[in-house]
Amino acid sequence: MTMETPIGQATSAHADDAPLLESYIGGRWAAPDGSRATLLQDAATGVPVARVGAAPDIPAAVDYARTVGQASLGDLPFHRRALILKALAQALTAAKDDLYAVSAQTGATARDSMIDVDGGIGVLFTYASKGRRELPNATVLVDGAPEALSRDGSFGGQHVWTRMAGVSFQVNAFNFPVWGMLEKFAPAFLAGVPTIAKPATPSAYLAAAAVRVMVDSGLLPDGSLQLVVGSAHGFLDHLDARDSVSFTGSASTGRMLRRDDAVVVRGVSLTTEADSVNAALLGPDAVSGTPEFDAFVASVVTEMTAKAGQKCTAIRRVIVPAASVEDVVEAVRARLAVRVVIGDPRAESVTMGPLASLAQRDEVRARVMDLVAGGGEIVIGSLDEPEVVRADGSVGDAPDGAFLAPLLLRFADARDEDAEGEVQPDAGPAAARSAAVHEVEAFGPVASVIGYRTLDEAVRLANFGGGSLVATVCSADPDVVTALVAGISPWHGRVLVLDGSVARTSTGHGSPVPHLVHGGPGRAGGGEELGGIRSVLHHMRRTALQGSPEVLTRLTGQWRAGAATDDGIHPFRKPLSALRVGDRVVSQPRPITLDDIEHFAEFTGDTFYAHMDEKAATANPFFPGRVAHGYLLLSWAAGLFVDPAPGPVLANYGLENLRFVTPVSPGDEVRVTLTAKQISPRESEEYGEVRWDAVLVNERDEIVATYDVLTLVAKEA
Amino acid sequence: MTMETPIGQATSAHADDAPLLESYIGGRWAAPDGSRATLLQDAATGVPVARVGAAPDIPAAVDYARTVGQASLGDLPFHRRALILKALAQALTAAKDDLYAVSAQTGATARDSMIDVDGGIGVLFTYASKGRRELPNATVLVDGAPEALSRDGSFGGQHVWTRMAGVSFQVNAFNFPVWGMLEKFAPAFLAGVPTIAKPATPSAYLAAAAVRVMVDSGLLPDGSLQLVVGSAHGFLDHLDARDSVSFTGSASTGRMLRRDDAVVVRGVSLTTEADSVNAALLGPDAVSGTPEFDAFVASVVTEMTAKAGQKCTAIRRVIVPAASVEDVVEAVRARLAVRVVIGDPRAESVTMGPLASLAQRDEVRARVMDLVAGGGEIVIGSLDEPEVVRADGSVGDAPDGAFLAPLLLRFADARDEDAEGEVQPDAGPAAARSAAVHEVEAFGPVASVIGYRTLDEAVRLANFGGGSLVATVCSADPDVVTALVAGISPWHGRVLVLDGSVARTSTGHGSPVPHLVHGGPGRAGGGEELGGIRSVLHHMRRTALQGSPEVLTRLTGQWRAGAATDDGIHPFRKPLSALRVGDRVVSQPRPITLDDIEHFAEFTGDTFYAHMDEKAATANPFFPGRVAHGYLLLSWAAGLFVDPAPGPVLANYGLENLRFVTPVSPGDEVRVTLTAKQISPRESEEYGEVRWDAVLVNERDEIVATYDVLTLVAKEA
Repeated sequence: MTMETPIGQATSAHADDAPLLESYIGGRWAAPDGSRATLLQDAATGVPVARVGAAPDIPAAVDYARTVGQASLGDLPFHRRALILKALAQALTAAKDDLYAVSAQTGATARDSMIDVDGGIGVLFTYASKGRRELPNATVLVDGAPEALSRDGSFGGQHVWTRMAGVSFQVNAFNFPVWGMLEKFAPAFLAGVPTIAKPATPSAYLAAAAVRVMVDSGLLPDGSLQLVVGSAHGFLDHLDARDSVSFTGSASTGRMLRRDDAVVVRGVSLTTEADSVNAALLGPDAVSGTPEFDAFVASVVTEMTAKAGQKCTAIRRVIVPAASVEDVVEAVRARLAVRVVIGDPRAESVTMGPLASLAQRDEVRARVMDLVAGGGEIVIGSLDEPEVVRADGSVGDAPDGAFLAPLLLRFADARDEDAEGEVQPDAGPAAARSAAVHEVEAFGPVASVIGYRTLDEAVRLANFGGGSLVATVCSADPDVVTALVAGISPWHGRVLVLDGSVARTSTGHGSPVPHLVHGGPGRAGGGEELGGIRSVLHHMRRTALQGSPEVLTRLTGQWRAGAATDDGIHPFRKPLSALRVGDRVVSQPRPITLDDIEHFAEFTGDTFYAHMDEKAATANPFFPGRVAHGYLLLSWAAGLFVDPAPGPVLANYGLENLRFVTPVSPGDEVRVTLTAKQISPRESEEYGEVRWDAVLVNERDEIVATYDVLTLVAKEA
Repeated sequence: MTMETPIGQATSAHADDAPLLESYIGGRWAAPDGSRATLLQDAATGVPVARVGAAPDIPAAVDYARTVGQASLGDLPFHRRALILKALAQALTAAKDDLYAVSAQTGATARDSMIDVDGGIGVLFTYASKGRRELPNATVLVDGAPEALSRDGSFGGQHVWTRMAGVSFQVNAFNFPVWGMLEKFAPAFLAGVPTIAKPATPSAYLAAAAVRVMVDSGLLPDGSLQLVVGSAHGFLDHLDARDSVSFTGSASTGRMLRRDDAVVVRGVSLTTEADSVNAALLGPDAVSGTPEFDAFVASVVTEMTAKAGQKCTAIRRVIVPAASVEDVVEAVRARLAVRVVIGDPRAESVTMGPLASLAQRDEVRARVMDLVAGGGEIVIGSLDEPEVVRADGSVGDAPDGAFLAPLLLRFADARDEDAEGEVQPDAGPAAARSAAVHEVEAFGPVASVIGYRTLDEAVRLANFGGGSLVATVCSADPDVVTALVAGISPWHGRVLVLDGSVARTSTGHGSPVPHLVHGGPGRAGGGEELGGIRSVLHHMRRTALQGSPEVLTRLTGQWRAGAATDDGIHPFRKPLSALRVGDRVVSQPRPITLDDIEHFAEFTGDTFYAHMDEKAATANPFFPGRVAHGYLLLSWAAGLFVDPAPGPVLANYGLENLRFVTPVSPGDEVRVTLTAKQISPRESEEYGEVRWDAVLVNERDEIVATYDVLTLVAKEA
């Protein structure tokens, strides 16, 4: 791949030569006023990387998103958007080496960049895949089943999701400039809502580099992604109830946003993902020497050192049986010694890089001092500048690099004063002698060990965090796992159960996966991101529609009972291009005899007594006597509705929601009505899915069975 | 039914004799200090009804809910809770006459009481029914499909809903004291979360009467419902992230709650349902003389007069083609004249009662003056006190009753100044000449007519409301319906499409139904209530669980592939009491021949070419040649896994999620594995549901088909 535009990588040693970062607004890259620009420096060396100038034109970006972005995305059905996400992921994959080089300037090792860059690309691929597998190829999403609201079926209800009418304004944190941006962008894009991405300033050059790749790919619909670099102060003033804000950052900023009139008065939808003092709990069974103990220690060390501990999901509280505290500390110490080499991420041997900036290191040191003041004793590491491996492989000081060694603290007695009584998980510093350990997030390679004596106490300690993104429960004892998970689930967005069987395959405590919700209650911000299609819905509004079956069919694109039907040409003779919802076939009746039932039983081997033994069948509470097999009825129904000659219907690939309602006795007749219910052409195939409504009735017009038949149908004859 | 305790009905003419309303806290009714009590008076006569004393002990109620309430509800699975809701509904039904008599004191006619009392009871019945039909008989709810997170299947994810760990604090409005309380209570109860109900003071005696019936029924688990009468000032100080607040009331109070530290800092979950200036839109096709016009006018009159217009869902803005304004006004005038008799709701002829209080009438009059100041002209009714029908049937003044005649205003030109350009729906009074009509909610029998010229303008006008609970679109023209619904859906919680076909069966613009979401974006508060199980989930937390199949099976109660299995006794021989998830049967293989396929085709009539015509089948993109019928495979699978003799398995009542994965050719063999996946005993039957995981494979162990088999199984052998 040739890069026609630079993607932000700079090596200049002169501050004024560092490139001025551009915003991408209204379909154009534009440089800000750079007269009072902020300099961004390489985290490991202090070399100037880029400059951030005056505030971007946010009103222009909002206006462009609401008009051009809404229009260009609105025309695309879900599957089309999903395919664009896939192509964007491929474009970013092709640019990965360049992005890794830029990423190294933020202090990221290759492993850290993999989490950020590959992780972000993985989110796009996952949404591309889920969008096509789990959403219809439409722009409106039906939510739940139809609700009958009148006895005669003439009036009903149906919930639908429609995209929000405005913009998704996404405020990202500095630690994962690529993943953080893409995990917010992908669901919004799939929903059909334009994104304005606001990267954190310290690593904005990496976010900008990724956006350049996406823009240069030519794949982005106009206005679907804009980037605003620099101060976004007052951005909420430009938003209203049609817009949403996804914020990742400090709890204090999150609170400021929550109190803003835009949210409180104008109804901007706000999701926040903030501080989280995540816990890992070791079960009493998982003593030194067990696979669980080893997996636990490995996880603690990984979470302390990956991205130099600058992860909102990192383990901050290591909650272990009091008897195991020493063993855990020593095992962590040993593993850190073997595994961790601190230094410039461009040096091959290095496994842990610097913090994002010197300012960030000051911040972490201050928080560690808060932990010490709150009763913590540093048992591994120190706040001094460590010796590091420099880019050239030499070892020594790196005064311009933001390096900090991994730090483990121990809290001697972490119980709250009132541990036997009712516990207020967030009653504040007064409630617990060591509140700091539950409340202070030192956003670096820092964790604290706390001992517990009972499982109840372990649960209380974990929940003292007041709500967090993720907790690990490490135990192979089913009772321990059940008790701990039940106790902590209401307070944690994600709970990972670690045991020997998953030690090698676990995706890890600190890794949000796009399939699962990322977010947590209380202190963690109360938001939800990712979780597959769940986060797409956060960019849509649920509306309850009421009306006639005809109206609901038209508004949802899904046929429902009572709406118009067309019994003309057999629908199996119509390709997708001609087929309409409501096209149907009503079969002739077919009588069923005892011979049929016995014949079917013999052929299939299904000699269940309800079909074969009159006396036993009559004793069954649900049957009047011997009845036909459900599978016989299904098979006959297919024989009744099928049009056998080659045609556009290619295959029956499945069946849903089958319910047998009324048993069929010998002497009854059955007939079937099959109606086209939902038509979903595939974007990149010559066929699509058709869902058919099947209703089987007897000679008294009683419903025998209802189900959906799923077929593949060619687009053209 | 005999009422052992008084349910609040008072007729005393002396203020000090009026009963002092008690709160129900900690399992006891307790009277407050009554030395400075507030007097509540009959809305139609001014006769003292009850007194409201000092503030209730909210910390005690919160503590009791979190401890006793959480414990007593936590032991009950969803179906048990649902059955209690049903029994509570029956108890309230038996007390209906008494409740109607109390309700009349609030100014409610019999029709109004039906909306409130029967409506509330209907919510309980609906949740009782949906709880048993749509939830498992468990305490944890699995959310979505399992997510595979490792290639070898050893590590996966599963979202689950668990109830919130605290209390649901429910602040209700004065207008529907019974419905408003029960529509919040039912979902919380079903979720397993204890309720503290805070009725609005003006009609607290009716809410208290309903709670008395529920308490006296003996059905309520301890602490599951408490009632706090009187000022709840500062209640948020006692709540934290484990609790939720459902607020219905004014936008200003809603905003105050949203800004509170409890919400912003401590993470209390808050749902608000506030002001909503709801619209009804008449299509250009629906001119005078059409069924749609008549249905529209009838709906406007109903919404103006039911509950004297004191409904958060009432139509406030009547948006009609400019050419139809006169016709609509005159039709409304005519219908009001024929249909509406104002007076004491105890008089038989009366169809519209007073407002809730004299203070409320003052409030409504002031808002009407705001509308007039905002450009509205009163075209029907006046602010003067109307003549009314008194309880004894006489006609005349009623100086102590809070009566107000229905009022219709007309706005001459409701367009905003910038109607051709980009419209800011909530840009405030400066943006539109007649902003008042879109922003002022006169909470009484008051509506305003506004003319539009184009459908786009109608959409803009409707959306100027800045988000509302419900809108009606009245038209029989499919294109009009589609355009209007698409335009307004993102701004409205519910959209009712009214046409001639549903004029008689529609549940009505102003009636939230428990099946559908009640709530709306923006000005309407941004919350969601009701909507069936959706609102149960608002009282639960979603957690993403990660772990081995074994761990996930144990934590969810649902078996998944990779977890332990037991191939001992054939599981069809085990009653529910002995059956465990993971119990399974692995069948022998069965070879398939071309004869089998032809035989099946002949017997069923399913001669689809893919089974019968080698050449045509080979041309099909999905088949290697002639293949076995999917229904043949299903039928054989049943023959392979069934244990035919009478036993605990009573019936196969359905099938879900069938997917045919690999076609089966003549010469192949198939075998099936059937594993008990989910076991759900019924509360009030001698049997329950068992869901089985069925996997059909061929002789190369390729998956042929996967599906879930649904059976009814006896609890005991």
